[in-house]
Amino acid sequence: KDRFFVIAGPCVLESEELAFTVARTLRDVCQGLDIPFIFKSSYDKANRTSIQSFRGPGLKAGLDLLGRIRADLGVPVLTDVHSVDEVAPVAAVVDVLQTPAFLARQTDLIVACARTNKPINIKKAQFLAPWDMQQVVAKAESAGNKRILVTERGSCFGYNNLVVDMRSVALLSRGPYPMVFDATHSVQLPGGRGTASGGQRDFVEPLARAAVAAGADGVFMEVHEDPDRALCDGANSLRLRDVPAVLRALRDIYTVTRKHVNAAR
Amino acid sequence: KDRFFVIAGPCVLESEELAFTVARTLRDVCQGLDIPFIFKSSYDKANRTSIQSFRGPGLKAGLDLLGRIRADLGVPVLTDVHSVDEVAPVAAVVDVLQTPAFLARQTDLIVACARTNKPINIKKAQFLAPWDMQQVVAKAESAGNKRILVTERGSCFGYNNLVVDMRSVALLSRGPYPMVFDATHSVQLPGGRGTASGGQRDFVEPLARAAVAAGADGVFMEVHEDPDRALCDGANSLRLRDVPAVLRALRDIYTVTRKHVNAAR
Amino acid sequence: KDRFFVIAGPCVLESEELAFTVARTLRDVCQGLDIPFIFKSSYDKANRTSIQSFRGPGLKAGLDLLGRIRADLGVPVLTDVHSVDEVAPVAAVVDVLQTPAFLARQTDLIVACARTNKPINIKKAQFLAPWDMQQVVAKAESAGNKRILVTERGSCFGYNNLVVDMRSVALLSRGPYPMVFDATHSVQLPGGRGTASGGQRDFVEPLARAAVAAGADGVFMEVHEDPDRALCDGANSLRLRDVPAVLRALRDIYTVTRKHVNAAR
Amino acid sequence: KDRFFVIAGPCVLESEELAFTVARTLRDVCQGLDIPFIFKSSYDKANRTSIQSFRGPGLKAGLDLLGRIRADLGVPVLTDVHSVDEVAPVAAVVDVLQTPAFLARQTDLIVACARTNKPINIKKAQFLAPWDMQQVVAKAESAGNKRILVTERGSCFGYNNLVVDMRSVALLSRGPYPMVFDATHSVQLPGGRGTASGGQRDFVEPLARAAVAAGADGVFMEVHEDPDRALCDGANSLRLRDVPAVLRALRDIYTVTRKHVNAAR
Repeated sequence: KDRFFVIAGPCVLESEELAFTVARTLRDVCQGLDIPFIFKSSYDKANRTSIQSFRGPGLKAGLDLLGRIRADLGVPVLTDVHSVDEVAPVAAVVDVLQTPAFLARQTDLIVACARTNKPINIKKAQFLAPWDMQQVVAKAESAGNKRILVTERGSCFGYNNLVVDMRSVALLSRGPYPMVFDATHSVQLPGGRGTASGGQRDFVEPLARAAVAAGADGVFMEVHEDPDRALCDGANSLRLRDVPAVLRALRDIYTVTRKHVNAAR
Repeated sequence: KDRFFVIAGPCVLESEELAFTVARTLRDVCQGLDIPFIFKSSYDKANRTSIQSFRGPGLKAGLDLLGRIRADLGVPVLTDVHSVDEVAPVAAVVDVLQTPAFLARQTDLIVACARTNKPINIKKAQFLAPWDMQQVVAKAESAGNKRILVTERGSCFGYNNLVVDMRSVALLSRGPYPMVFDATHSVQLPGGRGTASGGQRDFVEPLARAAVAAGADGVFMEVHEDPDRALCDGANSLRLRDVPAVLRALRDIYTVTRKHVNAAR
Repeated sequence: KDRFFVIAGPCVLESEELAFTVARTLRDVCQGLDIPFIFKSSYDKANRTSIQSFRGPGLKAGLDLLGRIRADLGVPVLTDVHSVDEVAPVAAVVDVLQTPAFLARQTDLIVACARTNKPINIKKAQFLAPWDMQQVVAKAESAGNKRILVTERGSCFGYNNLVVDMRSVALLSRGPYPMVFDATHSVQLPGGRGTASGGQRDFVEPLARAAVAAGADGVFMEVHEDPDRALCDGANSLRLRDVPAVLRALRDIYTVTRKHVNAAR
Repeated sequence: KDRFFVIAGPCVLESEELAFTVARTLRDVCQGLDIPFIFKSSYDKANRTSIQSFRGPGLKAGLDLLGRIRADLGVPVLTDVHSVDEVAPVAAVVDVLQTPAFLARQTDLIVACARTNKPINIKKAQFLAPWDMQQVVAKAESAGNKRILVTERGSCFGYNNLVVDMRSVALLSRGPYPMVFDATHSVQLPGGRGTASGGQRDFVEPLARAAVAAGADGVFMEVHEDPDRALCDGANSLRLRDVPAVLRALRDIYTVTRKHVNAAR
């Protein structure tokens, strides 16, 4: 909890080339900025708006690719699981397991992930209050796992819209576990395009800056070389070439914020 | 879609005695009022607020009990499934499968349920707009199943609170499938008691009356002999002895509403 | 509180002809249905979205017209006031004063209206909880006035959208004063057209039916001969020719609802 | 728009002593930090939750006190007006006029304030979308006034709660006018105590940090020597002794943020 970190990567493992390019670039950028980096990408998008949408390479091919990125590039990797039977094969490959926001209340999934004893990143559901996360975290802790991260990604705000309550960022970051702000899903407009979610890429950076100033320990960002052609979540993904400037700003705001917060203690 | 119907029963299969008592009473009440009745109860509460909470008898014992209620009392039964591997055993026993609101976006679960060719009751998530349900329904239809029910159970409204948008009831009831109003989950205060959800039983009846007047085809209600001692959702469950008066009012409002709506066509 | 009633009329006093036509037609329709009727129209729209929008004939000409409608047609009239100095001249002409929703918290305006000892219809603000209205009502009561009506017109729900919480209708109708459901402002999409508010006329009738079934004592509706050409709030106004069918349905739902509610006491 | 500034003071002019103490201390703190400072306090709280609540010294005594603070301490002063007839006397004394959030849609008040040609701080209503402020600002501009500030103070989020959408801060700060973040009203729980609003003082600082990082040009804060004994808004007011640390943090986050934002242009 004492060092700013980044979880980032393309929303879904579209292709080997994209995954390696993004992972390598992000690794180098973060190294240059002295920011710990975890690569994130999904092998399956299990809850797309439309049944027509691209879902990914699937569990086997996806884990194979994540394993090679991990080995070849020397970066820790994170991915999300969607059912209890996926937990064991995923835990055998990745460094951090992630539970999806929509599934935050599925007790068996949270417990199964926690039982792997791998670090687990629990995303707060759009339908939960900040304090509701205590009970979710308690489910993970009941499995004896204390390596937990908690991620904020926005709350329901009317229809097809989310709002980020920075009180939630402040509250969760006061807890015992690292608090992550998911800067790109937070600007989704869920279902906003009818058969797909829309997004407001333009607000990724100001929201991320705000969250870091409010106390977030790290940020999560979906990043793509060419977001407008991404097969998933392009509207809210950050352009790869825009990442360095964003991370520099976040790192500096983190440093200033922590200096003042620590001085006030 | 031309006849008012009721889906009701205790939230969870607490005991054989409770389940049989509630099922038999509801069957007789509905028979007396000439309202088609489907018994509902859960074998597992997979998304309780707290890990300490009662979950139910489990799949095997629960399906066994549901099967006996069905056979002995001659009532159709409905229950909810929480993962793809539960779908086949459940479909072998019940008349209607139900998908949980939190899981409305899990493509594989919706499709697996639809593939059984049993009627499927899809609950609208608290985080979805009414029109978002079109895409969810399209996932079920993609499996060739047209025996679909769509259930409204409230939308996120700030923290630990839900609001029922009657525009959603009106909109969904204009669609091709029977539209159900879940009158008891709609008055939940999710997570409102810290380690459990609260509820506002007092509003079950006026909300149900409102939904039927707005166009709902049927209602869903959790019913318990002694809700204050229920092991799940007691705060928002209806008292068994209050059911007859409520159903009489709903049936009469349904009749008046349909008369005027049909006259206007 | 024991008889269903209607407050209706064109949003604003566009012209003498429109006002008289709508007032006369509504009077006759309500007479035929045995429903008490109060004519409503505004002399000034003091809070239009855009400064370019039509505001009305102004205080003097507007009150003159309202006075003639009252005298010539023999109907009670209601209008809304927007500042303390308008209260006395308005009270000299109309039967019921109304306070705008946005101004529900302006203590001086509420008290000034109440001091006239005329009946006062207090609209609940979009930003208030149902129980917040107790304090607003207490301000009116502090002036010794007990002839109060309380109107629900929807709550903020994300941006440019309102939702009607039927729990509010149920709660407010349990209070000591007649509870009115404003069926046409409740379907506004405030500011939804950029320089004007949008509306969803299609939902006026189902929402009104729902509110009456939830316990509303009366309804408020803006009505226009040709809403698509109305100078204010056309998108959510009801067509004059559609009023009879709507009122018949509401009256019948009211009758059925009250029969059951009274039986349950 | 190129320099961080602060508008602050006690919610209401409780006493001459309190007003002078707070004004003098804030002036000196801001001077030490090289931050431009405007003193704010109200002569009348026109929209208290309860009619029993303290309202202030009234127009005459209040303006007299504000005038002496201005003259004796050499600080610019700001206060809020609640009706058109207050505009002229207030404009004769203060440096900046402010319009209340609840009254953001009252055309005549906005225009009357703008016509004074004094700078005018327009608070965004809790019921407006960020983009709705364009029409409100256009009303002020229609009077030929371009010295406008726009203030964000939170949006309705369920009942008795507000949420600050940092997208609004980002959006409004991209406009032509200085954008102010009202850090203390944003943590109000409106009506949350039944006969008074509650507040979450604990979140003032993290929200203010977040808003400055999101792009706010200045902050607005209610400050009291002993907030727990304040006659208005104590629950969300900042303690006077906590102000220096908060402002130092905000100033430094402002500097870092602007450096990066300007570099990105």
